[in-house]
This record gives sequence, C-alpha cells and structure tokens, in this order.
Amino acid sequence: MLHLDNMTAGSRAILDQLSIELPSWAFGNSGTRFRVFGTAGTPRTPFEKIADAAQVHKMTGVTPWVSLHIPWDMVDDFSELRAFAESEGVELGTINSNVFQDEDYKLGSLCNPDPKVREKAIAHHIACIDIMRQTGSRDLKIWLADGTNYPGQDSIRARQDRLAESLQRIYNELDEDQRLVLEYKFFEPAFYHTDVPDWGTALVHCVDLGERAKVVLDTGHHAPGTNIEFIVAQLLRRGRLGAFDFNSRFYADDDLIVGAADPFQLFRIVWEIVSGGGFDPAAEVNFMLDQCHNLEEKIPGEILSATNVQEAVAKALLIDPEELAAAQCSDDVLAGNRVLMDAFSTDVRPLLEEWREERGLPARPYEAFQESGYLDKIRSERTGGTAMSWGA
Amino acid sequence: MLHLDNMTAGSRAILDQLSIELPSWAFGNSGTRFRVFGTAGTPRTPFEKIADAAQVHKMTGVTPWVSLHIPWDMVDDFSELRAFAESEGVELGTINSNVFQDEDYKLGSLCNPDPKVREKAIAHHIACIDIMRQTGSRDLKIWLADGTNYPGQDSIRARQDRLAESLQRIYNELDEDQRLVLEYKFFEPAFYHTDVPDWGTALVHCVDLGERAKVVLDTGHHAPGTNIEFIVAQLLRRGRLGAFDFNSRFYADDDLIVGAADPFQLFRIVWEIVSGGGFDPAAEVNFMLDQCHNLEEKIPGEILSATNVQEAVAKALLIDPEELAAAQCSDDVLAGNRVLMDAFSTDVRPLLEEWREERGLPARPYEAFQESGYLDKIRSERTGGTAMSWGA
Amino acid sequence: MLHLDNMTAGSRAILDQLSIELPSWAFGNSGTRFRVFGTAGTPRTPFEKIADAAQVHKMTGVTPWVSLHIPWDMVDDFSELRAFAESEGVELGTINSNVFQDEDYKLGSLCNPDPKVREKAIAHHIACIDIMRQTGSRDLKIWLADGTNYPGQDSIRARQDRLAESLQRIYNELDEDQRLVLEYKFFEPAFYHTDVPDWGTALVHCVDLGERAKVVLDTGHHAPGTNIEFIVAQLLRRGRLGAFDFNSRFYADDDLIVGAADPFQLFRIVWEIVSGGGFDPAAEVNFMLDQCHNLEEKIPGEILSATNVQEAVAKALLIDPEELAAAQCSDDVLAGNRVLMDAFSTDVRPLLEEWREERGLPARPYEAFQESGYLDKIRSERTGGTAMSWGA
Amino acid sequence: MLHLDNMTAGSRAILDQLSIELPSWAFGNSGTRFRVFGTAGTPRTPFEKIADAAQVHKMTGVTPWVSLHIPWDMVDDFSELRAFAESEGVELGTINSNVFQDEDYKLGSLCNPDPKVREKAIAHHIACIDIMRQTGSRDLKIWLADGTNYPGQDSIRARQDRLAESLQRIYNELDEDQRLVLEYKFFEPAFYHTDVPDWGTALVHCVDLGERAKVVLDTGHHAPGTNIEFIVAQLLRRGRLGAFDFNSRFYADDDLIVGAADPFQLFRIVWEIVSGGGFDPAAEVNFMLDQCHNLEEKIPGEILSATNVQEAVAKALLIDPEELAAAQCSDDVLAGNRVLMDAFSTDVRPLLEEWREERGLPARPYEAFQESGYLDKIRSERTGGTAMSWGA
Repeated sequence: MLHLDNMTAGSRAILDQLSIELPSWAFGNSGTRFRVFGTAGTPRTPFEKIADAAQVHKMTGVTPWVSLHIPWDMVDDFSELRAFAESEGVELGTINSNVFQDEDYKLGSLCNPDPKVREKAIAHHIACIDIMRQTGSRDLKIWLADGTNYPGQDSIRARQDRLAESLQRIYNELDEDQRLVLEYKFFEPAFYHTDVPDWGTALVHCVDLGERAKVVLDTGHHAPGTNIEFIVAQLLRRGRLGAFDFNSRFYADDDLIVGAADPFQLFRIVWEIVSGGGFDPAAEVNFMLDQCHNLEEKIPGEILSATNVQEAVAKALLIDPEELAAAQCSDDVLAGNRVLMDAFSTDVRPLLEEWREERGLPARPYEAFQESGYLDKIRSERTGGTAMSWGA
Repeated sequence: MLHLDNMTAGSRAILDQLSIELPSWAFGNSGTRFRVFGTAGTPRTPFEKIADAAQVHKMTGVTPWVSLHIPWDMVDDFSELRAFAESEGVELGTINSNVFQDEDYKLGSLCNPDPKVREKAIAHHIACIDIMRQTGSRDLKIWLADGTNYPGQDSIRARQDRLAESLQRIYNELDEDQRLVLEYKFFEPAFYHTDVPDWGTALVHCVDLGERAKVVLDTGHHAPGTNIEFIVAQLLRRGRLGAFDFNSRFYADDDLIVGAADPFQLFRIVWEIVSGGGFDPAAEVNFMLDQCHNLEEKIPGEILSATNVQEAVAKALLIDPEELAAAQCSDDVLAGNRVLMDAFSTDVRPLLEEWREERGLPARPYEAFQESGYLDKIRSERTGGTAMSWGA
Repeated sequence: MLHLDNMTAGSRAILDQLSIELPSWAFGNSGTRFRVFGTAGTPRTPFEKIADAAQVHKMTGVTPWVSLHIPWDMVDDFSELRAFAESEGVELGTINSNVFQDEDYKLGSLCNPDPKVREKAIAHHIACIDIMRQTGSRDLKIWLADGTNYPGQDSIRARQDRLAESLQRIYNELDEDQRLVLEYKFFEPAFYHTDVPDWGTALVHCVDLGERAKVVLDTGHHAPGTNIEFIVAQLLRRGRLGAFDFNSRFYADDDLIVGAADPFQLFRIVWEIVSGGGFDPAAEVNFMLDQCHNLEEKIPGEILSATNVQEAVAKALLIDPEELAAAQCSDDVLAGNRVLMDAFSTDVRPLLEEWREERGLPARPYEAFQESGYLDKIRSERTGGTAMSWGA
Repeated sequence: MLHLDNMTAGSRAILDQLSIELPSWAFGNSGTRFRVFGTAGTPRTPFEKIADAAQVHKMTGVTPWVSLHIPWDMVDDFSELRAFAESEGVELGTINSNVFQDEDYKLGSLCNPDPKVREKAIAHHIACIDIMRQTGSRDLKIWLADGTNYPGQDSIRARQDRLAESLQRIYNELDEDQRLVLEYKFFEPAFYHTDVPDWGTALVHCVDLGERAKVVLDTGHHAPGTNIEFIVAQLLRRGRLGAFDFNSRFYADDDLIVGAADPFQLFRIVWEIVSGGGFDPAAEVNFMLDQCHNLEEKIPGEILSATNVQEAVAKALLIDPEELAAAQCSDDVLAGNRVLMDAFSTDVRPLLEEWREERGLPARPYEAFQESGYLDKIRSERTGGTAMSWGA
C-alpha cells in the first residue's frame, strides 16, 4: 500500500511544493463563437473571481496563485485587490496582457503593419508592467492573436521583424526581478498563419531578448500528434521553460479540464517535468491552468484540473529514476515502458487523501466543495450586475 | 486559345446552369470566440442582407439564391421578404434552422436528454417548415451543434436514438416537394463528441428517414487529411448528396473564401461533381456557400468565393472524360493525373470573362464591384441600428 | 477493495467470456519501409507461429484464437495445422486474405481497372473460403490496399463500382455459417485515395451485400482526432460491427501494443462495447489484435496487448450503468464524466490477479512468461530456416 | 502575354540560376512496408542511377546535381563516379549518411544508449566526410531515424545530450568549406518520439555547433496543418536554411511528386524563398528533391517534380514585390492576397517553353522524355543484376 511515509525526501518535497496558478478568467463565462452559455453566480468583479479562485485553494491546497488578465481584471487600486487576495488566502500571480479585443488590433498588435497600432500595443504592455509592480507579479505573459487569414495578406517575415522590435521595447521596460514569458499557439484566431506558432519561434525571440525571456508552453496549442513532453524536455534542457499552461484538448484549443482528454499524456508531460527538474523551485517554471469552462461549473472544473495535475505528479513520483535508467539501458525494449506504465496504472487517490488529511484539507476536494454550499451561496447572492466574461 | 465556342454542348450547359446559393449570414458580422470585428455598412435587417447578396449576383451572374437562417432572418412577413428578393433579382432558397443559441440548448437540441428541450427543438423545425411554405423553399437544412465536451457526459448511443426519433418527427412534417438535408461536422462547438460527426452518420439517418432526406457536405467539416472528393463521389453514387457547402479551411472550420486555402482541392472536388453528374439539375444538389468573413469585406469575399467556384468548374470542364478514361486504363500510372493537371494549370479567367461579357456582366466582378461605389454607399447610409451578426 | 465476489453476474460473465483473437503475423518479423529488424527465435513456419501464439493464451487465458493470413500461413494441409493448434490449446480463427503483395496488384486488386486482375483477386478470396471450410473459420476478413497515389490516376467512382461487384462475387461464395468482414483504413499504402477509407464506405457495401457482411474497425485506421468510440456505438447500433482490431497509434497506423499510446481511449472504446452489448456472444463481434512488434519481443508484446484489453474491460465493468444513466440525466454536466473517471482511475490489476489465480493462470502473465525460459528455448532451437515476416 | 523579355533582370537571374539537386535513390526501387514494386530498367549500380539522373537534367536543364546516399551509392572509386557524372553532364552533390539500416541501429544511432553504437555511427559520418573530399561535395546531410516507439523506452533528454555530443564530434571533422545540414522529421520510422522532430530542435543543435551547421526542411516532415512557408521565412531570417527538400504529401511522409498534392502550397513556399532571398546563390540554400516513386516511372516522376518547382518559381516571379508591399499596407485585407492569387492563377507553361527553347532544351520535357526511347532502352539493356533500392 502506498503511504506518504514511503516516499523519498525529494519526492515528498516535490509533492509538498507543488503550486499551481489559477486563471482569473476561468471563473468568468466563456464559450465558442456559436454561443457563450452563462452560469448563475458568475463573478461580476475581479474581486469575486478571486473569491472563487480562493475556494479552489481552500479545497485543494495546491493553488495559491491567481493570474490576472488586463484589462479584464482592471481595478482602480491593485493594492486593494492584492490585499483582498491575501485575505482570501491566495496571492496575485502572472499578469496577462490582452491585445486582441480592440478594433485597432484587427490586423494584429505587436506585428501590425501600422506603427501606431504597434505603439498602442507596446504601451499596453508597459502599463501591464506597471501593474506588476503593484501586484508584486514576477511574470508578464504575452500571448498574441497576431497572424493572417489569407496568404499574402501581410508579409510573414516583416511581421517577425516587427515582433522582434516590439518585444525588445517591452523587455527593456522590465525590472530586474521581472520576466517576460512568451506563449506560442499553432492556430486560432488567425487561420492562415500565426506569428508565434511554435516553440521554435518563441525560443528564438526569447534568446534574442535576454535571460529573463522564457517560453510558455500551453497544452492545447499544438498541431495534432505533437509530442508535447519532448518540447518540455527540450525547453528545460535549454533553461527556457518559463511557464506551463495546463488544460486539455481533443481537437484544437479546446480548453477542457486538465487530464480530461488524455490523462496518460498528462502523466508523460509531468514525468518529463519531474525528471528534468522542472518542479524544483530554482527552475522557476510557473505552472498554471489556462482553461475555459463552457458547459460545466467553473469552480468544480478548476478543482478537478488541480487535483488531476496533482494525481499525475504523484504517479510520476512513483517512478524510481534509477530503476528507470537501468531499464532503459537493458536489452529489453519494453523494460523502461513497463516502469512508466506501472506508475501510471497505480491508483494514487488514497495517497493524496492521506496528504490532504495531514494538512487539514478535505480528503476529496471535489465532493467537499459540492457539499460546501458555496455554489448555492453565490447563485443567490450574486444577482444583478454583469457576469464577467472574456469580453470584460 | 480557349473559347466558349470550343466547348461541347454538355460542358456549356453545365457552365451556364451553374447556380450557387449565398448564405444571408455571410453579410452579417462574424468572428472567433476571441472577438467579432465589425465592418461599416453591415446590414441591420434581413432586407439589407438580401440587398447585399443581390450585389453578388449582379456582378457574377451565378448566385441567384439566398439561404436564410432562422431566427437570424426572422421577419414578420416572409412574402414581403420574398418579393423584395425578387425585386433585387434573387430568390429565397434553403431555410436553415438554428437550435444552438438558446439557453435551453446548452446540452443539445434534437439529442438533448431532456424531452422538453427536444420538443422545443422539433417545434422550431416545424416552424421552419411553415416558413418554407411562405418562402417557396425546397430544403430544410439541419446542422446541429449537439454533442458533449466530456466522456461520459451523456450516452453517445442514447443520443443517436433520440436524434433518429427527432428527425423522423420533423421529416414527417415535410410536404411532398420539400426535403430535409442533414449536415455533418467533425467537431466544434462540441469538443469530445459530435452527434452527427461524419457522412456515414448523416447517411444512415437519411436512409432511415426516406427518399427526401439527403446529406449536406461542408468542406470545412472534416478531420485533417480527409479526402473530400471521395465522399462527393460516394454520396453521388448513392443518390444522397443533397447539398454541398463551399468554403475553405487550413486547420479547422475556418470558413474562409472558397479556394483560398487549397484551390487544387476545390478543383478535384468540382471535377468529382462534374464526372458524377452532380451539376445536372436532375441531381438536385444544392450548391451553396457557407462562410464567414471575419476580417475581409463581406460582399467582395462572396464575389471571390463565387468566381473561384466558377473557375474551378471551368477548369474541370476542360477535362475530356473519354481522354481521361483512356489514360486511366493505360499502363502509365501518371497518364490520368497529367490530364487533370493540364486542366488545373490552365488559366480559365479569360474564358470566363468572355462568358460574362456574353451576358452583359462585368468581365471582372471583383474589380467591378470595388469600383461600383456600393460599399461607400452602404457605409454612409447604414448608420444607426444594430449590425446583424450570428447572434441576431 | 475490489474482489471478484463483488461483481454482478452479468459483469462476471463478460470478464469470463472475454476472448481475443491473436494475429499469426504478429509473431513474424515486421518493420517500416526503412528497415525490418529481426529477432532471434522468430518462427520459420505457421506451426511455430501457432506455438508462440499458444504461449500467450497459456499465460493470459483470454486469447484462445489465432487468425491466419493467406498466403503467409499457407500450409499443405490445414487439418494438420488445425490439429496442431488444438494440441497447443488454441483454435484457428479468422482467415485474412492478402491481395497486395503480388506484382499484379500494383494498381489494386478488387478495384483494379484490369478485369483479369480483379478475377485473380476474387479467385484468391474463393480459395480463402475453401480454406475456411478446412479450418472451421467463421470469418473471411478483407482488408484492401487498393487506392491511388495521384489525383486522376484512376476513377474513384468506377473503383467503387468494381469493388461492389467484386465483393458480391465473393459474398455469394460464402456458406450460410460464414461471414465476410470488411475493414476500412484512412490511408496507407495508398497516399491519395483509399477505396475503403472509412466506416461509412465499409457499411454501405456491407448493407448492399447482405446480413452476413459486417464492418471491421481497426483502432489505427482513422484520421487524427477521430472519435473511435462513437463509431463503435454507431456500428453496434446498426448491428454491423463484425470485428474490432485492437492496436494503438500515436500518428498513423503505428500498430503498437494495445493501450500503449492512449489507455484512456482504449477504456472509452471498451466501455462503449460493454454498454452496447458488444461483448455478448450473441453480438458476434470478433475481438482481435492486429499488430506488429517492430522493436520489442513479439510474445511479450502480445501478452501486454491482451492484458491491457482485459484491464480496460475490468475497468469498464466497474461502471454501474444505472448510476451512470442517472448522472447523465442530472443537471451536473460533470456527473457522468466523474463516474467514468472513477472507474478509469481504479487499479484493477489486483482484481485480475485474483481472476487468474482462480483459473490456475500466472497472476502476472508478462513476468511469468519472461521467467518461463520459452524465449531462450526458441532462440536456441530455431536456428536455420527463414524467419517469417509480412513477405512470406 | 507573358514573355521572358518582360521579366526584370533580377527575376530573370533567379529563373536562370535555379538549380535543383536530384536524389540518386529516387531512381532505385522504393515502396511501403507492405510491398516494394519494381520497374523494369531500374539501375543496378550507382553509375546507372547517375545516368538516369542525367536524363532529367538533359530534359529540364535545371537539375545539374545528384545527391548520393552512403552506403547505397558506395563505389570503390568515387573519382571514377565523379568523372562519369561529369561526362553525363551532371555533378555530384550532397552526401547523405545512412545510420538506420544496420542491426546495430535498432535503438538509434547518434542517440543510441550504447556508446559503441554511437561511435560506429560517428565513424560512418567521418567516412562520409572523407567521401565528400573525393566527390567535391559541400554538404553532409544528416537525417536520423532515431527515436523510440514506447514512452519510457529511453530518456528523451539523455538522447538529446547524446545527440549534441555526437553531432559536435562530426562537425569537428568538417573541412572549412564543408557544411553539416541537419534534417528534422515529425515521425516515422519512430512512432512515439523522434529525436529531431521539428525545426526548433534542428536549429538549437545547429546554433550550438557553429556557423556551418544549417537546417534542412523537408516538405513531408511536418504535423498536419503546419504552415511550412512560415518555417522557410523564419529559417531564412536566421540565416539557417541549409537545404530545402521538395516532395509532396497528402497525409504523412508520402514522398510524392513535388506539387502533386498541393500546388498552391508549393507556390507559397517558393514565394517565401523568393521574397527572403533564398534563391540568391549567396544564401547557399541547397534545393533538392527527396522522393520515392513507388508506382510511377522514376525518371518521368523526377522530370515532373523539377518542372513543377520551376513553374512555381516562375509564378512567384510574376509577383511585383513593391505592388505586394503596397497592397499589404492598404486598408484592404484582401489586396495582398489578390496579388498572390493573380500570380498563381497564371499559366506559366508557355513562358517556360520559351525559356527552354532559348536554351535548346525540349519545350515539354516530360513528353520529350517519353518519346526519347530511353525507357525502352534501359528496360531492354538492364537485364540481370539486382535492381537498386533503399536496401542497397
């Protein structure tokens, strides 16, 4: 039987230090181009989003951070928001810029052919850096919707040059203890070409920028069949994995609950992080969720994502690296695979219940939240106002 | 040099009879889940959509029909809309139902686990059939957003049974001269499973329903790498191709201008339609555009889609079926391919200019429209009101 | 704790009756176009293949059948082979035809433009039917490599017509207790079009042929992102799932060990089979492995595939259908998913060890085989001769 | 009407200097894992391959180089082969290593866990470098089949480290006028992970190696939906595009005739090369074909590939860069696209016939070769011996 007592100190430390950042926007409404379905009790303010996010941490104990999206989470006084977060038991984390929802950005932001639009987009990022100083955030996360829909619409190469220049302008504004983390995405919303479509592109820009520029890997942002754990290994090897956005997808960027589509892929990714030292705090990789809950309740969805990551980590920690290495050097092609599969096949839920009970957390966070009455409370209390969503 | 005079009577007839239906919704605003960018002059009413659609026909001469989407195109008096269309030189075509934008449809419409919701969705289709009687439409087109996002969320099989039952209820309401055409789609907006994901599913339901149920093939609704012309050939062979929705895609259901992503695929599809007799009016295949113009101007986008289809048809008509058949029976693996490639490589634009001039149409529709001043006119006239979009 | 005693009679029956057919060719060498790597001890005769297959059944108790591939498994006297199989504790199963390795089949077999080649391919199938009478096999399994590499190389539609005619000729030769099962495949070895690329095509041909024609679903034969369990549900619903070929794939038709790439997909597929009654012997679905072991040892590879299927079945049997149905009708989008995930997360290996011990089988088949000395034995005994492979 | 006289000097220079390298292996037999079909007259020696390759240059005038594959093209005396090539009017080009067909390479070559195997693979490359000195080749092209089939089979990261070390050892052996060009491939023959799967991986290794290490981009080696012209633009921008392998694919690495699957993609790629200066000899990008002709005759297949590239280049040269740049800066989203589409829609075959006649080349190379009698000649002369293929 698995018990916490049997874990090595190193494994135990990884399990104990695991810390996942929650996206404030997951608590607002989201949907597809066909329809955004709402839920009762959806937050009307950034404060309410943080209150909801704090519930996830209260139940799971592994999500002490909340990412903000600017301007969706714009408030008059970020020190007030920060204090509120702390009073709820969480901290403000990464600041995410948004340069894709203004009419000016129709043809792009940092890559836009119009220099005035690029200036506006750069200025937005500088404003975000200022907010980071107020929130105490380390990371400025940049995901761009930039790209084109039709071949020839704009010059792929000229856009790269503009991108490099714009990013440098932003990077230069960072304080010494701040970082720029650059996210790539295969497609959507641009359909013909995307200006930062793959890890290679993100990496070459980060290398040009400097040591404090790192790549963000988002599970859903790859071509079909891409081996994501390979990219994890490669970026960790280069010291350039800045953040990992967990979510899951069957087809495109579906933004489903982490592990919902392919729990074995999640396990392989997590194992690559473990074996590459990515969970070591010194590696400074920020683990985040980046999701939408289009149909399901948002807080329970986030709880499941968090516990699914934790389960994958616990499974990965069952792997004995020396045993695996020995198996990989044997003549038996399947020996190493067997070690992995044994870990994956193991049910670690009892182990994690033990871990939670040790901390005074509910043994089963999802069920505990369902029984907590919180959803009923916000459904009845949050009447009036406008539910927050991607639009605001 | 290619000339109309050199065409066979049969080819000439296909070129002359080519008739493409325009989607009213292409003239309203559309976008992605990230943002719907608008354009000045966007129609505020179904009447204005039809006026815009009529421009496409005036320029190209090949788009005499307009598809309506209910409730987006709901008007008090459809006979008035019909008369307006005719006064503009076009006719009302297919009626498209919409059972994906109401809160009740969050978990599906015709496949919803709740019988009350299914009843509501069936009633909507019956209302559409009534509208068809007023508009004189032959086809009721059903595309469903039904599906699930998570494995286990609902029973795949039970949903098929509900689907069969709901469709039968609708089919029974059709008049003898009306048809039900059922569209399939690989994914989106549902992410885990879609209730009508492929042509096989659409076909088995149509066969169960009866002779007046046919399959709708939409270019963008397939898995990566799917050979669409094969499906065209198969459905024509079974007498079940009810409609073909032209658009184009690089990745998912991108809804780009027809032929924008892969003009050679468009040509191959059109050749399969030609060779399978699909352009024969007796085949009763409805050729439609089904697109969004997220970034580009809508009327020019539709004009290009229409002329791109026409160019592909003209190229396909350059193929001598007997020469091709002989090549395909030769020992030379490449002989048949050479026949196709010769046709595809040919520039048919001069031939089509000749065709247009013969009819008193502008030789170059896209340029003619740009110079017509129509865009300036609607931009200045259509102030106030709410631009139409997918939402209304 | 899970125990066999706690299973319902129905679940217990499914577990006890589970019967998986092994492919004789999995025990010969196979590889990619780049290289076929061999292993010491590889069978030189069909008898040795059956001896190896029997090892899998001796270890697992769930693989009492062996599929033959003609002409790879051609012997002078099939009654002798049958007697040998029975003496080894297994039975001869499906007969697989092979019409893709003769020079004549370069441009196809049943769809070949040359009627003489089609006759030859039909005659091969009639010969296979005769072998079935000797082996006592129920199913003639047809997988065709037919297709084209270049657009225009041949007529897609004419090939469908030839296919229909050829299949009918073969079907007519079947005895009343024999079936034709038709396999589809998305691509490979044909690169432009495949003559039976999808379940829809296989189904329409089967329906035309008659009641004893069924569809074969092979896990690896789909476009990226295809929802395979949906197809299972649909074919079971139509009473046309004739066989399910288990294997696994990351990209194309990789033919890896079952469950190696996506164990959660395997579980979902198996659950759909369970819930659709597909494991009921009356459903007459033949469950087979269809794999290659390019790098790993063949017998251990087959053992893992068999036990992985069995584990997936055991997990699926943990689902209480009534609980699931109730969850699916609740307001909670995630309720049904939770039921599935609980089953999937459970470690059923101890339960299956109990099941094996009850039958006098080794508790851990893979390890037991490794320790059995059989591999050493065949490596030392099988010297000289030519190792069997796809070519012979 | 298009005429050579109307081309700018710069465009004319690009057209005149276009130089494509042929792969010797395209003239041998190749196939799929299911079957290698042969053709009469297939070369039995490297000399006969070069004789066949020279036919392609005699017909097209654009393929003066032949790539060799070691050991497939191993001869006792490379100076003799070089002299023979020159006597046939072509020159020896890139040397391609082969470390995937020896039993030792079952688990990889430069990444193999066994240091002895790595040494062997490194030694092979050093032997290739020595051959380069004899053949006068500039480029050593490395494509590796290295990877794993099962998660956990080996350490992804350790293999990267071994790869880096092995490549450095090889790079150090190069003369000052020699280059190492590293090819990446998404998948196949490895199914779970490939050690150089994408341009990012190839680039980071090249950057580490030094200035004379460049990336090879092969059309067929990408995930579905990858925007290849983007990668071209990015690698040209970084000065790291060493070679471009033309071929075409519908699904995987199909190795079909260039432009056979998607001529518009070929055009977009070529345009990106043109606009990025990649055809400038100073850019030192090596344009090659890398194909198999599984079903079609090999020499005609190569001729079509060469002329298809040339047609795409001619079309790209129709684009006026200033007109395009102006269009891309206009308010009209479609303006730039229209410039590209006009060029693509133009039939440049007459222009290229003019170009060929100017040089005393056959106006229509494919037809000229068919009528030349060469195929009949080799079919009758090359009897006996063993046809060359991937295996030898």
